Amino acid sequence: MSRNFTSDNVTPASAPIMAAVAAANAGSAASYGGDAWTARLQAVAAEVFETELAIYPVATGTAANALALAQLAPPFGAVYCHPAAHIVTDECGAPEFFTGGASLIGVAADDGRIAPAALAAALERAADAGVHHAKPAALSLSQATEWGTVYTPAHVAGLSAVARQHQLGVHMDGARFANAVAHLGCSPAAATWRCGVDVLSLGATKNGALCAEAVVFFDRALARDFERRRKQGGHLWSKLRFLSAQLVAYFEDELWLRNARQANAMAAALAGGLRGVPGARLLRPVEANEVFVALPAAVVAALEHAGFGFYRWRVPDSADGVAVRLVASYATASADVAAFLAAANAAAGGAINGLRNG
Amino acid sequence: MSRNFTSDNVTPASAPIMAAVAAANAGSAASYGGDAWTARLQAVAAEVFETELAIYPVATGTAANALALAQLAPPFGAVYCHPAAHIVTDECGAPEFFTGGASLIGVAADDGRIAPAALAAALERAADAGVHHAKPAALSLSQATEWGTVYTPAHVAGLSAVARQHQLGVHMDGARFANAVAHLGCSPAAATWRCGVDVLSLGATKNGALCAEAVVFFDRALARDFERRRKQGGHLWSKLRFLSAQLVAYFEDELWLRNARQANAMAAALAGGLRGVPGARLLRPVEANEVFVALPAAVVAALEHAGFGFYRWRVPDSADGVAVRLVASYATASADVAAFLAAANAAAGGAINGLRNG
Amino acid sequence: MSRNFTSDNVTPASAPIMAAVAAANAGSAASYGGDAWTARLQAVAAEVFETELAIYPVATGTAANALALAQLAPPFGAVYCHPAAHIVTDECGAPEFFTGGASLIGVAADDGRIAPAALAAALERAADAGVHHAKPAALSLSQATEWGTVYTPAHVAGLSAVARQHQLGVHMDGARFANAVAHLGCSPAAATWRCGVDVLSLGATKNGALCAEAVVFFDRALARDFERRRKQGGHLWSKLRFLSAQLVAYFEDELWLRNARQANAMAAALAGGLRGVPGARLLRPVEANEVFVALPAAVVAALEHAGFGFYRWRVPDSADGVAVRLVASYATASADVAAFLAAANAAAGGAINGLRNG
Amino acid sequence: MSRNFTSDNVTPASAPIMAAVAAANAGSAASYGGDAWTARLQAVAAEVFETELAIYPVATGTAANALALAQLAPPFGAVYCHPAAHIVTDECGAPEFFTGGASLIGVAADDGRIAPAALAAALERAADAGVHHAKPAALSLSQATEWGTVYTPAHVAGLSAVARQHQLGVHMDGARFANAVAHLGCSPAAATWRCGVDVLSLGATKNGALCAEAVVFFDRALARDFERRRKQGGHLWSKLRFLSAQLVAYFEDELWLRNARQANAMAAALAGGLRGVPGARLLRPVEANEVFVALPAAVVAALEHAGFGFYRWRVPDSADGVAVRLVASYATASADVAAFLAAANAAAGGAINGLRNG
Repeated sequence: MSRNFTSDNVTPASAPIMAAVAAANAGSAASYGGDAWTARLQAVAAEVFETELAIYPVATGTAANALALAQLAPPFGAVYCHPAAHIVTDECGAPEFFTGGASLIGVAADDGRIAPAALAAALERAADAGVHHAKPAALSLSQATEWGTVYTPAHVAGLSAVARQHQLGVHMDGARFANAVAHLGCSPAAATWRCGVDVLSLGATKNGALCAEAVVFFDRALARDFERRRKQGGHLWSKLRFLSAQLVAYFEDELWLRNARQANAMAAALAGGLRGVPGARLLRPVEANEVFVALPAAVVAALEHAGFGFYRWRVPDSADGVAVRLVASYATASADVAAFLAAANAAAGGAINGLRNG
Repeated sequence: MSRNFTSDNVTPASAPIMAAVAAANAGSAASYGGDAWTARLQAVAAEVFETELAIYPVATGTAANALALAQLAPPFGAVYCHPAAHIVTDECGAPEFFTGGASLIGVAADDGRIAPAALAAALERAADAGVHHAKPAALSLSQATEWGTVYTPAHVAGLSAVARQHQLGVHMDGARFANAVAHLGCSPAAATWRCGVDVLSLGATKNGALCAEAVVFFDRALARDFERRRKQGGHLWSKLRFLSAQLVAYFEDELWLRNARQANAMAAALAGGLRGVPGARLLRPVEANEVFVALPAAVVAALEHAGFGFYRWRVPDSADGVAVRLVASYATASADVAAFLAAANAAAGGAINGLRNG
Repeated sequence: MSRNFTSDNVTPASAPIMAAVAAANAGSAASYGGDAWTARLQAVAAEVFETELAIYPVATGTAANALALAQLAPPFGAVYCHPAAHIVTDECGAPEFFTGGASLIGVAADDGRIAPAALAAALERAADAGVHHAKPAALSLSQATEWGTVYTPAHVAGLSAVARQHQLGVHMDGARFANAVAHLGCSPAAATWRCGVDVLSLGATKNGALCAEAVVFFDRALARDFERRRKQGGHLWSKLRFLSAQLVAYFEDELWLRNARQANAMAAALAGGLRGVPGARLLRPVEANEVFVALPAAVVAALEHAGFGFYRWRVPDSADGVAVRLVASYATASADVAAFLAAANAAAGGAINGLRNG
Repeated sequence: MSRNFTSDNVTPASAPIMAAVAAANAGSAASYGGDAWTARLQAVAAEVFETELAIYPVATGTAANALALAQLAPPFGAVYCHPAAHIVTDECGAPEFFTGGASLIGVAADDGRIAPAALAAALERAADAGVHHAKPAALSLSQATEWGTVYTPAHVAGLSAVARQHQLGVHMDGARFANAVAHLGCSPAAATWRCGVDVLSLGATKNGALCAEAVVFFDRALARDFERRRKQGGHLWSKLRFLSAQLVAYFEDELWLRNARQANAMAAALAGGLRGVPGARLLRPVEANEVFVALPAAVVAALEHAGFGFYRWRVPDSADGVAVRLVASYATASADVAAFLAAANAAAGGAINGLRNG
């Protein structure tokens, strides 16, 4: 049983992923992607996304994001994104580094979902400054967002329309893309290229892989020279088959969606249970596998003391308690959720009793 | 007479600056700073700032800022500054480029002057994210600010104290440093190193030079290898004497302060006069040589039609009119101000009459 | 049986490495290196190298080299290395990119081993140009070299002495470090920090790992902020345990040396056998696991036709035939070597007979 | 009288250049290139080069070269050039920095003029390494070369043909372009775009300007976004008129060619005189304004003692004496040359007498 709700990256790898890696360890194979697994991945991904595409595996999400953005934005370019986007707050400047100096420009949105009008306004401000301002070059959307919400395809289409009008490329940071698709119940195509996404950072590590992400170009012209960019970044594996094999297994038998559905269901169960915990207040809609909740300080302390793992979070509107983030994963079991809720209820009850008796 | 209030960089160069350039054109001289003018500049600057320092002339303010910040912030570093700072909005990503990828992090402040508590709060958020977040490396203050206000030495000292506590270097973007010092009436030393500034981008171009700015290191250890950084940036002139001579002349006979006082006085006169213009509202305190004012739309149109030059500005709280920025310079004459005010009053009167008659 | 002598990176992973990865897949574990495997790696490496050190796992050799060099060389720095070094010819500019613009300066040497006097001469030329030339910052040595030779500790010490005198850091590209140590028969300490190496790129992928390399700092002060540099490069794995576990297994029971000895022995066997092949000429001493040999064109064609894999190579002094590179690995068996030599002898005999009969 | 033959960058500015700067200092003018002088420069340059073009003034040659190359080469690109090219030896890594990591690859040539076959061979080696090697992106030619020689248009055309075949852009570092054109006696068009040059770094500083160089794009499509690149590099002047005015004056009345002819003539006079100095040996053809000569050590010492300025040079084939470089400029007078030759002859005679008497 796991009490660890800190992140979906503390999970082990799914059994089919491990089996695929073991199976790929069969004798010599051409290095640097000249192998059968990498060829197979290309075919599988094209099938899953129902289109011609170019897919490049890398080992980390930061690499996928930064390399993808470097294809879209020149050193003097600007990337528009949510101010709490992973590329802004948690990649230690990787996008600035890989683009050679591009500016990240925040477009705020309470629930993590950028509004098309807000994007348009930001682009107007850039136009005012002309050549003195970084050139608007890309829009980067996190799907699911950093606040655990999910963009609908229609929402993405609205943003893409603004982006197109200003010649921006559209990037989707899909570190939790599977969770978003599982929530939407739509096809991967509907969630990406059909609503205007040019490049997807496809995450798998948080959802059952050992270490597998990929940059997926739906507009293959945008992939020009990408192989060299990946190589220069130190992200071309010599034994690439071990990365490709993970992603093939990820897509096979819908492992990616099965894992994501489990994670989402457990987050929903947490949210449902928390609604009944005295003093708890959900801070954002729970649509993927993350729960943001404000809890009385004493409850948070009690849960930490009981060994449950999660992050205290800085949420602008959580003044009435301590905000925490809980992340469910494919490896989260119903019993884990039940144990957490029981402890929360007990602590909240005790807190209320303490309050009464105090 | 000039009707041009768009910027202080539309001005010609001051006569003493031109004379100094002409005088420097005397026979051969050692290139790359081995000349007598560059040596003299070093001595003059040390005298003006009452301390040992290292001063490096460059031709543009963007170069001065970006090169200075690259000494303070590594590629994975973070620079804290006002969100409307020139380095954020008007240098096309130069700081990101010269640092090799550092992140600029905005700390908002209505009047352009960052509050120490807001800086401290931003640094706490960075600490939360640990190694995933860019390393807090520098604080950059614009003096005068982008809103035409001026930091007092005490204010800077408060910010420097927070910066020191978190091992940040303190940079001052002094594109309008002379205007700030003229306003404060303090010594250049009091406005810089005595209140914790490590590196100053000293502007002269907006205040009477042809093309002269300088990076001034008060902590000379921070200047380590700066000569090579300047060279690699293409900012080391072969005939450096022509830059150095401008700056020597700038300091001599207090030309820099005389010019700045004139610019500030003209801005004050504009502000004073605008207070009497019907429908006008000053949007920010006028402390240096910039005036932000909201005017009735018809007045703005009439002034533009009359050939006055200025920028329409996006000011968050100017909903009751059209916000414009007026910049005075050393070359602005009382007659220029009088002409502008007369035109504004005429237009405002007409607008009111029009309103009455309408 | 394998006919693939193209590279040691076409090999599968060693069984103990695969077992270690599987064993690491046990439940949740703290991400980003807060796990037990990463802690264990630190201890194991310190023991193997008999010193305090800091070790950072990454997935590729290019990443290890480029990140290591970025710790030693500023953007305006110079890195001295062999003109055929992997960092020059096969990393697509990764060192220039990660350093932010450093210059790679070739110091030629016929057998791949830079001579101390040649390094000293190159440094004198840099001194001539002063601030106009990139600042000498690092020496990078490939061990084993690109020509399959190995530096003795005494040779490295001689180079380090020159490097020290000019304030250069010393980096060792140890993509085939195990092969070098196996050849030298000395301790890892003797081959590195005891002869002046500051930072080692430790390779494991070519010698039995799935995807594991590491940057090893013997002077831990040089590791300052390295975690952020690795993160910004996209090279910090969330599930780092899967990298660390490979390296722990690599060192345990001397797997690394056992694998390297097998590779070296097979290369020696190839070399020995080739000496007897009519028309063959060994082009470089065979000290590690690479063999450079000139063969009659007909022999090369026949071997290729028979399905043996290897690269034709451009060797300056191989005018009398076609130069090829043969790489042996831990996975090369005696039978593989025997099959190759038999085919070579048959082809050479046929070629000679053909010549006689022609 | 000047005894300074160290470089053409120790010279003062030509009188017409100074006059043009003074004339440009007339009242307000639009900043950042919106002025009349910059518009005029565009027209004048198009006339001089007999073609549509885009010209961007900057203040240094390093800036011109690095910015130009950044338009041609991506971070993972390769720039082919002479190993003694200014961009390799004297720009402190500016090309690597501005391109974001491109590799400079030397193609040797004794007299400074790269041979087409040598370029082709280097490109073949790159093709061998595929994606692991930097992508061939640009050819950079110095005109006049670092050895004081000049490429004929036919020679450039031969190189351009190889470059085109491999999709390389062709850059010309014309720090001494005027000297080359003066030597060739051809039109500027014939020396550039008509023989395949895409981008020219046009130097003026060494030939009479205060501080003026320019990037000239003959293929205007290559200038895409160049304004932002220049801005991000800190190379867009606010008072750009002062740069543009210099270049307009440079072209007017053929000042540039008159100055260059004087410089070349003085170099020729030096070379002619040196042929008669006992023990002197010219090391390279003297075609522009530089003279490389080997002199007896005692002669060199005597000239230095007499106050003549020049650099001792490292020339591969100057073992029979001390090699020195003498640079003539537009400001060099016949009397300067005569004085130098007289001193050299005197010293050489004394040296020979000393030898006889010794």
